[in-house]
Amino acid sequence: MTEQFLDVQQTPDAGVFRLHITKQICVGPPGNVFMFGGVGLGAATIAAERATGRKVIWSSAQFISYARVGDTLDLTVEVLSAGRNVSQVRVLGTDAGKLVLTVNAALGDREGLPDGQWITPPDMPRPEDCKPRPLWPVQDAALMDRLDVRLAPGRYGAGPLDGTPSSDGRMVVWIRTKENAPVDTSLLAIFADFVPSGLASAFGRRGGGNSLDNTLRIARIVPTEWVLCDVRISAASRGFGHGAIHMFAEDGTMMASGSQSAILRFMD
Amino acid sequence: MTEQFLDVQQTPDAGVFRLHITKQICVGPPGNVFMFGGVGLGAATIAAERATGRKVIWSSAQFISYARVGDTLDLTVEVLSAGRNVSQVRVLGTDAGKLVLTVNAALGDREGLPDGQWITPPDMPRPEDCKPRPLWPVQDAALMDRLDVRLAPGRYGAGPLDGTPSSDGRMVVWIRTKENAPVDTSLLAIFADFVPSGLASAFGRRGGGNSLDNTLRIARIVPTEWVLCDVRISAASRGFGHGAIHMFAEDGTMMASGSQSAILRFMD
Repeated sequence: MTEQFLDVQQTPDAGVFRLHITKQICVGPPGNVFMFGGVGLGAATIAAERATGRKVIWSSAQFISYARVGDTLDLTVEVLSAGRNVSQVRVLGTDAGKLVLTVNAALGDREGLPDGQWITPPDMPRPEDCKPRPLWPVQDAALMDRLDVRLAPGRYGAGPLDGTPSSDGRMVVWIRTKENAPVDTSLLAIFADFVPSGLASAFGRRGGGNSLDNTLRIARIVPTEWVLCDVRISAASRGFGHGAIHMFAEDGTMMASGSQSAILRFMD
Repeated sequence: MTEQFLDVQQTPDAGVFRLHITKQICVGPPGNVFMFGGVGLGAATIAAERATGRKVIWSSAQFISYARVGDTLDLTVEVLSAGRNVSQVRVLGTDAGKLVLTVNAALGDREGLPDGQWITPPDMPRPEDCKPRPLWPVQDAALMDRLDVRLAPGRYGAGPLDGTPSSDGRMVVWIRTKENAPVDTSLLAIFADFVPSGLASAFGRRGGGNSLDNTLRIARIVPTEWVLCDVRISAASRGFGHGAIHMFAEDGTMMASGSQSAILRFMD
């Protein structure tokens, strides 16, 4: 068993967990390196799952301020309700008392109800037939170095960022970790934070946006090395962009969906 | 100008608003009448917009307990951050101190950035050529009586609920209020809570689910009488169902999107 991608640590308080902010979990160019939003949601899901002993169904992060290299993110889990099958929690993520993010989540499993899947994965070549492309080009941080991200030649966001908007608002990528970390809720939370990269594809411009939130829904997680991430931007208006993501295992199982709204920012 | 659909009242405290729970904003059969979840989110968006003087970009409700007829929902707005263009808030909805729901939201508008829409409305007949159908059949409450909900003959969820799952997980309805209330964020929050009805269509069974959350993203609201609601269920597993909704004006503008996870419950 390989190690979890995020090193969330226990503390003496059973409801408090801790993540040290290093370049390994940050993104950004020189002078503006910050913890990737999906890392914050991912760490909070680990804290919520450990505190309740249950698995995430749905979780949503609201990003209030940036965490920087050298900060310590304290994750405090408040249980708002605990039923027979479902727990609901709020997780506050703070650095030295300053609020960085709040995360709401429901966790649990129920027996005896039907499964179903009504959505299908997009038609993509296998990852080995796709091309690696860094979605975050100039980096003074190392999170993106830990991920292997591949686009299909000639479609779904593979076009040049030359100012021409895409016709379909879609960006499809295969992602895996280079360190072979287990695919779990926390990793899918990180992948869900590629929606702003879809804004770059949709507008055909460098940049994209800064997440206001990151909302993740876990259907079921099955063994897989690569995760197929289908990002669809729906609309942008009033200076903000909105989009969704569906994440599939190699066998076509929809493991999770996500959505978010972002402050539009372009670098060109 | 007609009145807002929800009668959210000011209180002497500028950060606290109040909604009296009546049958007019509830759903449910005899013996289990409760405030519709979308009403809770809608009321919280009204409170957040009045407290900040800004318009909702994104908002997410987490449902902790039910509010019943005769309860008073106090909505307390906490401002977590207030920037030049964007405010972020948490709204706590309580009845006599008991937590009913928490709502996170970002609000604001920015100038000078490009608009875009990459999603198109489904191919539907005009509402006058569609058929009214109550999605909540046996009711001892009046919210559904205030809405005019229409399905297209023969497609998108119009099939009988005879136990046959749908092939596409899709339910498309036109909705308007019978009282001609203005289409605003709070009304779209209510319409967004039709995702669980999509679970009934997807499984071809009566019922659907109880919302764990209701997440709403507002692109831009344009004048329209009817709202075209395109519900897509993605998957169900572990006893929970997940889906999304896109809401269009009559002119095809995508005004808002939503998503939610629900506890699966069937009545057959």
